[in-house]
Amino acid sequence: MKQIKKIGIIGLGLLGGSFALALRKQTGAKIFGIDKNSAHLFKALKMGLVDQKMEETDWVNLDLVVIAIPVNTIPKVTAEILDKVSKNCLVFDTGSIKAPICKALDSHFKRDQFLAVHPIAGTEFSGPEAALHNLFEGKKCIICDSGNTRNDLLEKGIEILQSLNMQVDSMDSISHDKHIAYVSHLSHISSFMLGKTVLEIEQSEKNIFNMAGSGFASTVRLAKSSAETWTPIFMENKSPILKALKEYIKNLESFASCMETDDEKSIFQTMKETNYIGNILDQNGN
Amino acid sequence: MKQIKKIGIIGLGLLGGSFALALRKQTGAKIFGIDKNSAHLFKALKMGLVDQKMEETDWVNLDLVVIAIPVNTIPKVTAEILDKVSKNCLVFDTGSIKAPICKALDSHFKRDQFLAVHPIAGTEFSGPEAALHNLFEGKKCIICDSGNTRNDLLEKGIEILQSLNMQVDSMDSISHDKHIAYVSHLSHISSFMLGKTVLEIEQSEKNIFNMAGSGFASTVRLAKSSAETWTPIFMENKSPILKALKEYIKNLESFASCMETDDEKSIFQTMKETNYIGNILDQNGN
Repeated sequence: MKQIKKIGIIGLGLLGGSFALALRKQTGAKIFGIDKNSAHLFKALKMGLVDQKMEETDWVNLDLVVIAIPVNTIPKVTAEILDKVSKNCLVFDTGSIKAPICKALDSHFKRDQFLAVHPIAGTEFSGPEAALHNLFEGKKCIICDSGNTRNDLLEKGIEILQSLNMQVDSMDSISHDKHIAYVSHLSHISSFMLGKTVLEIEQSEKNIFNMAGSGFASTVRLAKSSAETWTPIFMENKSPILKALKEYIKNLESFASCMETDDEKSIFQTMKETNYIGNILDQNGN
Repeated sequence: MKQIKKIGIIGLGLLGGSFALALRKQTGAKIFGIDKNSAHLFKALKMGLVDQKMEETDWVNLDLVVIAIPVNTIPKVTAEILDKVSKNCLVFDTGSIKAPICKALDSHFKRDQFLAVHPIAGTEFSGPEAALHNLFEGKKCIICDSGNTRNDLLEKGIEILQSLNMQVDSMDSISHDKHIAYVSHLSHISSFMLGKTVLEIEQSEKNIFNMAGSGFASTVRLAKSSAETWTPIFMENKSPILKALKEYIKNLESFASCMETDDEKSIFQTMKETNYIGNILDQNGN
């Protein structure tokens, strides 16, 4: 990818920082960074995630812009960036929701330079120090509404994502948001509320955490995730998440009701059937 | 521990098999095994987890018996075993609940040869092939109502558990069951119902799992657990689990209600506060 000489990274947290590391290694490009949190920018420069701070005059020279900021700020920031970049620059975001972003940008006169990207990669950590050079290695990556991206820029985008060893799949943004509510957003809520429930009892019952093992740690791991990142995701994907969350609550209530009526057979059956998810996770390499 | 020459392991699954491996390594003792599932016994013998099948004449010669069977079967089986062993043999169980077991055995004339043990160690796998020689390494282990165990046998039990590199803590069986409902049993239900919810939507929405990442896998990992093991745990610890489960459902409903009313501030605040669980998990080495 010799044509990529200058890359702008907007937002230097876990995802932006990891893209900076992976893309520099893959392309040898010079990395320009910006973050509205000046401490993050300072750290990212000090750690060598980015080569220099982006100045207003740099935009026009970029070949690629990666936008890795809270999802509610993506539409406005992306629109402003599209205004500034030159006509062969590809701009992609990395947000966990796609429909509101695509919808907001559809009327932009440079819409065809934008690609909606969701790398299914992350950890529960945040900030520049959470960046990993191999975060995307072997991961899935969903691109959405890609028919609205100019063909040569779409090809360039796919080539870049595949060069980071991601498996790129395509789908429409509305389906993406509906599905991701189940396999990502619901997990986060489940984990946060589990953490909250145990913290609440811990206030009155000391040392309960001394009894926690690796199973609890695994289930509650996502409750370490950044509130700054996840609050906007929940708000922007409200309707699909509420649907998933209500189905989840209904299943929990039904489990509680089986316990109350000593319906051992149904409890056994529902667990036995759900074990099937193990096969799917194994197939997926998780 | 030269005095331990013959050990009986009752139940040759994940826990029993792991005790067999770890105890043979630590004590050099001969391991006698028994499992009501003859395929498990056959596998355990073939894999060398145990040295030989336990015969009726062997009981009287054992120095230690480890009972690793479904929790609802522990009281009856333990009582029968206590009847058979000689007076210097220690018998301990490894169940995830302790109060019903201790209560059932309190009137046994050899109660003081029994120790209620809960190693906070496990994986989502089951059967003899799930056994790990280092499953207990560095883990916590709770012993309950240990005042009812004869002093020399209690010391022997603690010495054995510590020799496997477990950190042994003591508490009363009722507190144990109440606390473990929060930090273990609730996690399992949360994980199983999350898996169920996603499997249900998957039936109508194909390929949703293609979008699942490591976060989902972590949250749903416990849904691979054995229904045979966990159904009796849930039934036997009904009242503490129902309390924890209802608090969890209440927190999920409150989260849904904040989303419905666009109460972004409360969502942010509750996540921010729950992040604190990360510090606790880190302290615990999870």
